[in-house]
Amino acid sequence: MKRILLTISYDGTHFNGWQHQNNGRTVQDVVEKAIKDSLKEDIRIFASGRTDEGVHAIGQKAHFDTNSKIASEKIANIINLKLPEDVSILKSEEVSNDFDARKTAKRKTYRYDTYISYVPLPLKRNTHARVFGKFDFDAMKKAVKYFEGTHDFAAFRNLGSTAKTTVRTIYKASFKKISDTEFSFEFTGDGFLYHMVRIMVGTLYNVGRGKIKPEEINDILKSKNRKRAGKTAPSQGLYLVDVKY
Amino acid sequence: MKRILLTISYDGTHFNGWQHQNNGRTVQDVVEKAIKDSLKEDIRIFASGRTDEGVHAIGQKAHFDTNSKIASEKIANIINLKLPEDVSILKSEEVSNDFDARKTAKRKTYRYDTYISYVPLPLKRNTHARVFGKFDFDAMKKAVKYFEGTHDFAAFRNLGSTAKTTVRTIYKASFKKISDTEFSFEFTGDGFLYHMVRIMVGTLYNVGRGKIKPEEINDILKSKNRKRAGKTAPSQGLYLVDVKY
Repeated sequence: MKRILLTISYDGTHFNGWQHQNNGRTVQDVVEKAIKDSLKEDIRIFASGRTDEGVHAIGQKAHFDTNSKIASEKIANIINLKLPEDVSILKSEEVSNDFDARKTAKRKTYRYDTYISYVPLPLKRNTHARVFGKFDFDAMKKAVKYFEGTHDFAAFRNLGSTAKTTVRTIYKASFKKISDTEFSFEFTGDGFLYHMVRIMVGTLYNVGRGKIKPEEINDILKSKNRKRAGKTAPSQGLYLVDVKY
Repeated sequence: MKRILLTISYDGTHFNGWQHQNNGRTVQDVVEKAIKDSLKEDIRIFASGRTDEGVHAIGQKAHFDTNSKIASEKIANIINLKLPEDVSILKSEEVSNDFDARKTAKRKTYRYDTYISYVPLPLKRNTHARVFGKFDFDAMKKAVKYFEGTHDFAAFRNLGSTAKTTVRTIYKASFKKISDTEFSFEFTGDGFLYHMVRIMVGTLYNVGRGKIKPEEINDILKSKNRKRAGKTAPSQGLYLVDVKY
């Protein structure tokens, strides 16, 4: 028996998220089925964390145990033969038996892509959130930095969240202008609460619109009050970029 | 009666191209139906040119005649209410009655997006062509310039092409590095033969792979021989960016 770590990319558009459900198509189910069809093993895979419906992954990580004799780095190719085109295994590698894709994760990076347009753009509809009106890029660039550091993110979690602690550390939070009508945020942290990235982005939109000042991010963090933060930004702009161990 | 010019964007993935067919979903049919459903008029629209199955548009142009009393610039919004999410009207404007979206077009710009990866990437599968192996970016950057100017593009047309003349002028042809594994070509010209952009790109891939030298583009143009040019690059990397009148 060996433990294999997979690096997985998926287009979340036609998935009901990562995690197995009794109804609906999930990435976990599709990958487990591809492993069954290729390695002929009925196994369960464990991801670094769930992603919600519509959320994409550039580098999700997940582990599983196998008795296969196939070289670890070739397992990716074998599984890919059985996967639909909206999921791909980018890499397979052997890890130690105490490795756990979720528990031993040290850093995660998420990106969030947005475009500005009064008219919905077909070519960005599944890959970006849409906003409209004037956005102050400098203010958002300044504001995102207030998320860096160790904070209680109680104001930035979905109230359905069941996490034991709401304290998280964000190592890096950045704003990037792609064009006059397109921008991205990127967050690297030790972990993220349920909907945390999307609520941070919704709050940054409020800064961009001039509804709140950049430094008010600090006040909202201190308030620990979900109502002070912005709306949850939509799922289709969110990407799980990378997980480090 | 007034003539309206539409600027249209679409994600070509789920269309059998622009032009009406007896079978299959086309952009023309979908837009004409949306006009019927919104303006209650049974009209025909005329595009600057067809796009093939899978080809995208950022700014396709098409005209139609209407007796509607709605302000010309508001017609876009009215039609959009009846369009599916993979097509949007970005703009509607009144033009003179002798304006013809195809015949009076002066310049068209196409872009072609490519990524390099041994593994197909789900998030780029419908929006980029995939290639793999080593690509010499400098050589492709040099090679694309040989297409600029007035040439006989007989070697760069699909043999099913019925154009009267194969002479075209390319005002600008450029290469852009997006990242180490992604690049774009852009071409602005007075017109393009059937599959011409995709055959130019397929030939530029051969330059990138070191199969031919940049200056051989000139020889291939002179040969007027389709067999000397590269394979037709796939449709999903191609974007009709803009049409100028």
